[in-house]
Amino acid sequence: MTTYAPEYLDLVTSRDSGRVTEAFRREIAGLVSEGGLISEPAQLRTYECDGLTGFRVVPALVVLPATTDEVAAVVRLCARERVPFVARGAGTGLSGGSLPVADGVVIGLARMRRVLSVDVANQRAVVQPGVTNASISAMVAQHDLYFAPDPSSQVVCSIGGNVAENSGGAHCLKYGFTTNHVYALTFVTADGSVVTLGGDSLDPVGPDLRAVVLGSEGTLGIVTEITVRLLRKPEAVRTLVADFPDAEHAGNAVSDIIAAGIVPAAVEMLDTLAIQACEKAVQAGYSLGCAAALVVELDGVDAEVEGEFVRVQEICRDNQTTNIRIANDPDERAKVWKGRKAAFAAMGRISPDYFVQDGVIPRTKLGSTLSRIREMSTEAGLRVANVFHAGDGNLHPLVLYNAAVPGEAERAEHLATAIVELCVEQGGSITGEHGVGSDKACSMLKMFSPEDLTVMARIRAAFDPDGICNPGKVLPTPRLCGERPGPYRPHPLEASGVIERL
Amino acid sequence: MTTYAPEYLDLVTSRDSGRVTEAFRREIAGLVSEGGLISEPAQLRTYECDGLTGFRVVPALVVLPATTDEVAAVVRLCARERVPFVARGAGTGLSGGSLPVADGVVIGLARMRRVLSVDVANQRAVVQPGVTNASISAMVAQHDLYFAPDPSSQVVCSIGGNVAENSGGAHCLKYGFTTNHVYALTFVTADGSVVTLGGDSLDPVGPDLRAVVLGSEGTLGIVTEITVRLLRKPEAVRTLVADFPDAEHAGNAVSDIIAAGIVPAAVEMLDTLAIQACEKAVQAGYSLGCAAALVVELDGVDAEVEGEFVRVQEICRDNQTTNIRIANDPDERAKVWKGRKAAFAAMGRISPDYFVQDGVIPRTKLGSTLSRIREMSTEAGLRVANVFHAGDGNLHPLVLYNAAVPGEAERAEHLATAIVELCVEQGGSITGEHGVGSDKACSMLKMFSPEDLTVMARIRAAFDPDGICNPGKVLPTPRLCGERPGPYRPHPLEASGVIERL
Repeated sequence: MTTYAPEYLDLVTSRDSGRVTEAFRREIAGLVSEGGLISEPAQLRTYECDGLTGFRVVPALVVLPATTDEVAAVVRLCARERVPFVARGAGTGLSGGSLPVADGVVIGLARMRRVLSVDVANQRAVVQPGVTNASISAMVAQHDLYFAPDPSSQVVCSIGGNVAENSGGAHCLKYGFTTNHVYALTFVTADGSVVTLGGDSLDPVGPDLRAVVLGSEGTLGIVTEITVRLLRKPEAVRTLVADFPDAEHAGNAVSDIIAAGIVPAAVEMLDTLAIQACEKAVQAGYSLGCAAALVVELDGVDAEVEGEFVRVQEICRDNQTTNIRIANDPDERAKVWKGRKAAFAAMGRISPDYFVQDGVIPRTKLGSTLSRIREMSTEAGLRVANVFHAGDGNLHPLVLYNAAVPGEAERAEHLATAIVELCVEQGGSITGEHGVGSDKACSMLKMFSPEDLTVMARIRAAFDPDGICNPGKVLPTPRLCGERPGPYRPHPLEASGVIERL
Repeated sequence: MTTYAPEYLDLVTSRDSGRVTEAFRREIAGLVSEGGLISEPAQLRTYECDGLTGFRVVPALVVLPATTDEVAAVVRLCARERVPFVARGAGTGLSGGSLPVADGVVIGLARMRRVLSVDVANQRAVVQPGVTNASISAMVAQHDLYFAPDPSSQVVCSIGGNVAENSGGAHCLKYGFTTNHVYALTFVTADGSVVTLGGDSLDPVGPDLRAVVLGSEGTLGIVTEITVRLLRKPEAVRTLVADFPDAEHAGNAVSDIIAAGIVPAAVEMLDTLAIQACEKAVQAGYSLGCAAALVVELDGVDAEVEGEFVRVQEICRDNQTTNIRIANDPDERAKVWKGRKAAFAAMGRISPDYFVQDGVIPRTKLGSTLSRIREMSTEAGLRVANVFHAGDGNLHPLVLYNAAVPGEAERAEHLATAIVELCVEQGGSITGEHGVGSDKACSMLKMFSPEDLTVMARIRAAFDPDGICNPGKVLPTPRLCGERPGPYRPHPLEASGVIERL
């Protein structure tokens, strides 16, 4: 039985919301420029979900502001009328963080795609939230600079979404997360004030409110300008794919590499099923049938990288690698990464449906956790593909199922939840980088004490006293999670008919 | 004329405080173990200031809890009676962050000096806040690990204070600040709950409340356990001292090193006066009379460091270095650093009194800002020594004066304030790493808009609704700063007789 602290309940119980009336619609239309309002039902359906397609809610309205002032005006109107709003970037999030609220407004940031300034000497740029992750690096490539966070969706996902989720990517083992690459934010508070968080240094003056907004999944306000840190491109990059007889040997190789004092730019692991899917999709040259493959990338200055690259190969051989394939030029390296980054999408090649799970375990428990996932997969009679950031223990098990088989979707969701709870038992966490969103709000009860959750709720209420800013996300409530949250239950928004299950 | 937003005034105006009565004193004595209560006036004076010795306030009581539970019990009592409290580590802070409140309690963490666990495989340790910075590295040296943040006071300052101030140090250019090296905190909230902030990963689940506490200068609650990240010691370290004909050439060398894609572990600059003081104190071998010296340290793997070390020397020669001295062994390197780290304390060798200032400027404005500081120094008729983290533009001008000369202390404080305002005008900030504390609360008005300050005040009030947790620090108030904050005014606590000026 979950007990919620009384103060917590006061803080997360939703207040009386206002409704989107015809007058509200007319007023909001006057706040955004031409083409900035969507209210046709067919068009609204485009916004009914993000990358977590299992839950869908059609919003009452979508607005597409073009400037910080327009965002602030829209938010001020919502605040005045107590109408809930949900910010949305490119809609590629995997935890339902931008799932709309049924009688609320979606504030889409797709029209805010301008680069406001680039300061090459001080290695920073100011961009609007709709700019895609990959385009930042493309824009400064001529100066030998790049933006380090590289989620797999980087070609389409927006920097605003990266800020909301504190996105990592394959290279976060060495380079950290989005929070390590953002100096300052222009931020519209839930009452429509415009403030600056952070500054010119990564050591800010006073409490680091920049950092609390990074990764807050749109629950505190809306970011409208981002000052990103640009890194100088490394002189040398070396990439290899090593095959192993099983996941344990691959996991041990990862531990040995780190223990040798080498910090690779990336260490990714793929298992048989993941390799099979990737190869079918993009022919990246992974070995079909291999039990576990590691992608190891080193970067830095030539002399350093060459020495460490030899050492990594020795460590792979010490751990019974069956084959090492070295990417000899940028094209081959691009192919290796194309395979890895296509992994989620590629699952469609080997299964009609799949859940992407996201959990973290201590790196030292990689082998044993993968063994346990294999047992759970057998018990459930469902295949699980594994593709993940091995260097920092961030697992992405993909639970494969067929929605056309009655009961299989439920069994798959049950298994996916059990896997993430296994991660917590191993001393890890319920999400590495995909966020809590709609999907895992109830799992927060597995990880945090009532006191922990109360502090989170207090801070959230300080940013958003009326509870209008992306309500129902991240923090669990009795209404969302029931009195006795179990490993599987229908999503209450679904039970109430608000969410339509696919 | 400063305008404060009405909501801001509501949030920072102090509530009615409770008083330390005899009953309170008896009750608090029962909450801490033997020897944990100090109430003798002579002993209380030991706690009247921290490293910012210009302001002094004698607290009503000092308690020295030994466990998290004792801290929580003391805070619960303070909360019940609305008695303000101030956490204190080793008392080495330079901005008066742990200046007591006259009728309040100081919660000293000096008895909480235990190392609770060390996890060598996962490179982390859990320590209590009273553990000194340097002792963490000493403790894990046998495993070739160390704790990266290295403030100059590291031999005496405590990790709890480092967390409160988000301390950097000479090596933060490459390795970042304390926030980049802390996974999780056990945290006693202002109402005495015990919560965990952060987790096993540097990408936390949900909003990063760990990060907002890092650097909050004791205004949000009290940290009682810290999970620190340990780094593997670099294979190679190379250090040199290069002399330059003037600060401009030294500054340009710094810019050229960074532009060459080299990220040194540290780049420190000392000017003639700073060198003179250091040499008198510790004979580190700096060149007396030299206008500007750079200490450049590189670390990493052998092959990388050797190549870059040659390149750094070339860059110094391109910028007209007059002498390069290479530290050839660990002893010589230790001597170079002993000189640099002794710099503040060494000022006593060349001046009866001095103010340490702390400000940040964009690295590209190093030369021009130093020229302007020289002019200001001449105009004020006071010497200014400069010793600072050149790589990240964090200046530490030391304003030298003689308190025995009537009016000189005021002129010195005036000049120190003018220098930090110059930093803000240059696009920088009022503090790099020493914090806002008591000293610079009014300077916050120079840097932040009313809306910015309101958001900070809201978050602070969410953590501490009764305003009992280190009140009067960081955020400006009309009472502290007057209606019209100017470059110099007497500290209002001083004017009211609460603060006794030295």
